[in-house]
Amino acid sequence: MSVATEFDQTLNDMLELGRDARAAAKALANAGTERKNAALAAMAGAIRASVDEILKANAADVDLAKSLDRRASFIDRLTLTPDRVEAIARALEATASLPDPVGHVVEQWDRPNGLNISRVRVPIGVIGIIYESRPNVTADAGSLCMKSGNAAILRGGSDSFRSSAVIVRCLQDGLREAGLPETAIQMVQTTDRDAVGHMLEGLNGTVDLIVPRGGKDLVGRVQDQARVPVFAHLEGICHVYVDKDADLDMACDIAVNSKMRRTGICGAAETLLVDTAAADRMLKPLIDALTSAGCAIRGDDASQAADGRVEPATENDWPTEYLDTIISLRVVDGVDEAMRHIEAHGSQHTDTIVTDNAATANRFLNELDSAIVLHNASTQFADGGEFGFGAEIGIATGKLHARGPVGLEQLTTFKYQVRGSGQTRP
Amino acid sequence: MSVATEFDQTLNDMLELGRDARAAAKALANAGTERKNAALAAMAGAIRASVDEILKANAADVDLAKSLDRRASFIDRLTLTPDRVEAIARALEATASLPDPVGHVVEQWDRPNGLNISRVRVPIGVIGIIYESRPNVTADAGSLCMKSGNAAILRGGSDSFRSSAVIVRCLQDGLREAGLPETAIQMVQTTDRDAVGHMLEGLNGTVDLIVPRGGKDLVGRVQDQARVPVFAHLEGICHVYVDKDADLDMACDIAVNSKMRRTGICGAAETLLVDTAAADRMLKPLIDALTSAGCAIRGDDASQAADGRVEPATENDWPTEYLDTIISLRVVDGVDEAMRHIEAHGSQHTDTIVTDNAATANRFLNELDSAIVLHNASTQFADGGEFGFGAEIGIATGKLHARGPVGLEQLTTFKYQVRGSGQTRP
Repeated sequence: MSVATEFDQTLNDMLELGRDARAAAKALANAGTERKNAALAAMAGAIRASVDEILKANAADVDLAKSLDRRASFIDRLTLTPDRVEAIARALEATASLPDPVGHVVEQWDRPNGLNISRVRVPIGVIGIIYESRPNVTADAGSLCMKSGNAAILRGGSDSFRSSAVIVRCLQDGLREAGLPETAIQMVQTTDRDAVGHMLEGLNGTVDLIVPRGGKDLVGRVQDQARVPVFAHLEGICHVYVDKDADLDMACDIAVNSKMRRTGICGAAETLLVDTAAADRMLKPLIDALTSAGCAIRGDDASQAADGRVEPATENDWPTEYLDTIISLRVVDGVDEAMRHIEAHGSQHTDTIVTDNAATANRFLNELDSAIVLHNASTQFADGGEFGFGAEIGIATGKLHARGPVGLEQLTTFKYQVRGSGQTRP
Repeated sequence: MSVATEFDQTLNDMLELGRDARAAAKALANAGTERKNAALAAMAGAIRASVDEILKANAADVDLAKSLDRRASFIDRLTLTPDRVEAIARALEATASLPDPVGHVVEQWDRPNGLNISRVRVPIGVIGIIYESRPNVTADAGSLCMKSGNAAILRGGSDSFRSSAVIVRCLQDGLREAGLPETAIQMVQTTDRDAVGHMLEGLNGTVDLIVPRGGKDLVGRVQDQARVPVFAHLEGICHVYVDKDADLDMACDIAVNSKMRRTGICGAAETLLVDTAAADRMLKPLIDALTSAGCAIRGDDASQAADGRVEPATENDWPTEYLDTIISLRVVDGVDEAMRHIEAHGSQHTDTIVTDNAATANRFLNELDSAIVLHNASTQFADGGEFGFGAEIGIATGKLHARGPVGLEQLTTFKYQVRGSGQTRP
């Protein structure tokens, strides 16, 4: 016997968000570039006009975070300043100047029977962004979705709730000013954790894609529970492989930059692999360079024997993403063992080889199945801006649709337009 | 307290299939076009050399199906003849002559800092094909996967088990002859229904993609339960919209061809929409043309009033995929109402507009969000061969990665190769 079920307000509200987003997506799909860019310019204006209100809401968020004893790095990611608010406004203007992928004819061809077929870019539809803490993601993700013709449903961390709410209001002001539906960018109003679960179910088919931005716990939960496609990376266990034919200075520069430029990003190298045939010559200089830069090293027996500052590594260190000034170090038997190690312990994110041997480099570039494979360059180039995409909503390590940096183009899909003159099929 | 669990043979076998497929995929990814084409030629030879054995196994499958009182159309799809076996061999040879997408540089560009970036096609990895009855799918799907560098795990219906087993043995003979791993194409050996469930879970991350080929029950189950991406279409509820500015003869030809050329395929039209402004002139000729071709019509009040042969339609008829000589007919108020009807009742598969008004056609082509939108052409062109893809593993109506006909190119993904000269990121 069923009991009268309680009315699920959260579910009801979420489904309404989904329906409104779907309706907004339809309007947005044909809005045209000018109108979308006008909205972005208006959003930037609204952000600037509301800087005091944004900072006030942010201060309340930060106070609460401090009272909850959040870590200093967390507080830093959460905190907005006048400069950071200005950066949000400028990023909106930058998005307006990016080329609009919607409507772009990717390919066009004629068939022998006279049919003309085009593959044309169209928006994906409704994108759910689930993220932690950083209030600028609210504006970045919302505007990238909108520029690529998609409606966005934003679900940020509760820590940045007040800041994000004011930012979203500014974004919606901009939409309204340009004659676009406000529901093109919506924020989940409840901090009820069930709201995320509902989004992952797809809100009755109204959500086409989920993009999670945050730590492993968040991304892992999304990947496990989502019934909707996800663009994400769980970890960036990136490798630098120094081959026997590497230039030593280049190897040191690339190893240090890949690890130390910014240790907390997904493109930071977590493991250095050194060709055994180069170990005598290169191991100690590499260890010197990294140690001088402030990096701790956990290495195998061969590495420890080369330098007393190397701490012992265990098997657990190879698949560890430190996101810190620590790197794993292992001596491997040439490019084959390097690739086997990366396949066994990596996350198919970003890996680089340093060598002057073109054949070895090509083997690495061709045979390693990561989203980004580099030759003689730092892993820290794993970034949409560095790729020339102008902006990026995140990096994906799944295999389908979007792989690597996810920019405006990857937030679109395509359809076929077939133009005939009465053809029927025999 | 846990009880000693029974050893799950099916799960064990399936996981082993997955591991073997993953290992084979790695070898296949770098096999090179010549070797893959040699395998396809050898497969064709093996098929021809085994025609008697194939037909004998097929006869046993057909006898069993008849004893189970399967429908005539089912038996027909199941039955092989010497001609049909020869067609399988020729299809393998045709696949060999298709361009190999693997390794193709989709795009390449230089960055201001000197980095050269390429987006390069690579295989997706391991593809699970779950299908019903038609033994030629065994060869078609297996070979398309292999040509695009993917390992295939085939799970056909139990009705074609014996036929498929012999065919797979021929395919594996061909692989072996060309020096490729036999496990590049594997068949699920058990008819245990749990095997499909395990595939849908992804076999411990070894399966990258599922492609179901079959009726609504099969595809629906796969879409509901798969934890792995799926390329599929659930239904082909395709529309022909005849606009007031249509050429009447063209409209009749396209309507009849779209419905009647082959009623059982997903690109067959299921609903005819006629502009109210054209109804007086066009409704009766269209009804005549369809009825003369042997089609029954279920229509709204306006259609019934136009011709007594039109049976009454209910709301349930609009979203119905008849796969038969039946079509729904509705009079709509111009292209806007036509599009609203299609959005409400269609399946985002294939829809066509007949009109000589370019502006109206462009609105339909641009605003309707289906995988394939046509102007003045039959919906029956929704086919990889007709698109020039050479072959197709199915049609997808999802939005990501593959949309419309899924050919060799759609069975690949990409990675980035970045070539530098020592660049580090500031």
